[in-house]
Amino acid sequence: MRNIMLAISFDGTNYHGWQVQKNAATVQETLQDALEAVLKIRPGVTGCSRTDAFVHANAYVCNFYTDSSMPCDAFVKALNAKLPVDIAVKYCREVGLDFHSRYSALGKEYVYKIYNGKTRSPFLNRYALYYPYKLDCRELGVAAEEFLGEHDFSAFCSAGASVEDKVREIFSAGVECRGDMVEFTVRGNGFLYNMVRIMAGTLLYYAQGKIPEGGIADVIASGNREKAGPTAPAHGLYLNRVFYTKGE
Amino acid sequence: MRNIMLAISFDGTNYHGWQVQKNAATVQETLQDALEAVLKIRPGVTGCSRTDAFVHANAYVCNFYTDSSMPCDAFVKALNAKLPVDIAVKYCREVGLDFHSRYSALGKEYVYKIYNGKTRSPFLNRYALYYPYKLDCRELGVAAEEFLGEHDFSAFCSAGASVEDKVREIFSAGVECRGDMVEFTVRGNGFLYNMVRIMAGTLLYYAQGKIPEGGIADVIASGNREKAGPTAPAHGLYLNRVFYTKGE
Repeated sequence: MRNIMLAISFDGTNYHGWQVQKNAATVQETLQDALEAVLKIRPGVTGCSRTDAFVHANAYVCNFYTDSSMPCDAFVKALNAKLPVDIAVKYCREVGLDFHSRYSALGKEYVYKIYNGKTRSPFLNRYALYYPYKLDCRELGVAAEEFLGEHDFSAFCSAGASVEDKVREIFSAGVECRGDMVEFTVRGNGFLYNMVRIMAGTLLYYAQGKIPEGGIADVIASGNREKAGPTAPAHGLYLNRVFYTKGE
Repeated sequence: MRNIMLAISFDGTNYHGWQVQKNAATVQETLQDALEAVLKIRPGVTGCSRTDAFVHANAYVCNFYTDSSMPCDAFVKALNAKLPVDIAVKYCREVGLDFHSRYSALGKEYVYKIYNGKTRSPFLNRYALYYPYKLDCRELGVAAEEFLGEHDFSAFCSAGASVEDKVREIFSAGVECRGDMVEFTVRGNGFLYNMVRIMAGTLLYYAQGKIPEGGIADVIASGNREKAGPTAPAHGLYLNRVFYTKGE
């Protein structure tokens, strides 16, 4: 028995997120279809997290157990030949039998992309939130740093979340701009339901003057979802990396 | 009577090129629909060139005559509200009555994008040719310079072209790489049918060792389409700019 870890990238536009659902295409099911075509057996694939419809991934991590002796490189080629164009396996690694994509993860990195051009871009309507009012990159970066550290992020969690403990630690948070593209990147030990999208919506709230300078800390301290900004749309969000090694 | 020039960007994936055709969605027709919705009259729109299905544009130029007194900024907003998400007006300018998008053009710039990552990207399958074998950016750039100058480009013209004179002048040609993205940019006073796509296919031919170092000049001199590389796929091609002013 081998435990195979895959990192996949996907355009989430045509999927109802990762997790298998009745009557809706999901990334997990599509990947399992491809694996079944390659292995002639349908393995269960464990993912690192649920994702919402329209959310993208640059390196979503998942794993499955198999008796196949196929080398990892061959898995990458065979799966990419079977998968639709909007999902690709980036790399494959054989891992210890106790590795679990979700429970072994020490942290994750998300990117929220905002296209800040004067007019909307036909190439980015599925890949970034379009926001036409000029953003100040440096100011947003300063605001984003207020997320750093360990906090109860109840104000940044959508209703319907089932977890009790809403304390999470944010390791890094920053804003980078290249041309008209504004990218908010945040890394932490875990994220609540819609947390990154609410963080992005809160940064835009701040940009609109609805939260004063230094006021994001107060929003966090309030624990009140209504004090934070709106949940930014799913199509700007990318799961960028998952970390399994300390100091990575 | 006013003559209005528009620069538009479009994702060509869902269009059979610019020019109106029977039974096929085209950019020209879609733009005319939006103009009709705004102006309540359907103006004829003149484009700077035909484009093939799947070809994209960052700033395709077109113009139309109107009696409307609507300011240019208002045109941009109104049209972008009516147009589908894969077409956007970038800017609008009132020009002299003798301005003609096609005949007034002094030159054009095209970009051909090649994604050179180890595995295909789900985000780029409509926006760049995927080429998995490692390209040498510097070598390609040197090869691209062989296109410079005034030549008879018969070897770089698909059959079916109706023009007699196949002499064109290339002002600049180069290759730029950022991460795994390889971009061939070429600027000239005019381009034959499929010329940029055949140039891109020929650069890949060169990268594959099918044309020796310095051999692109010989391909040009031969005037023989069969000596050049294959026509690279349409979805990697972007009309980037059109020039109307000397020294621009």
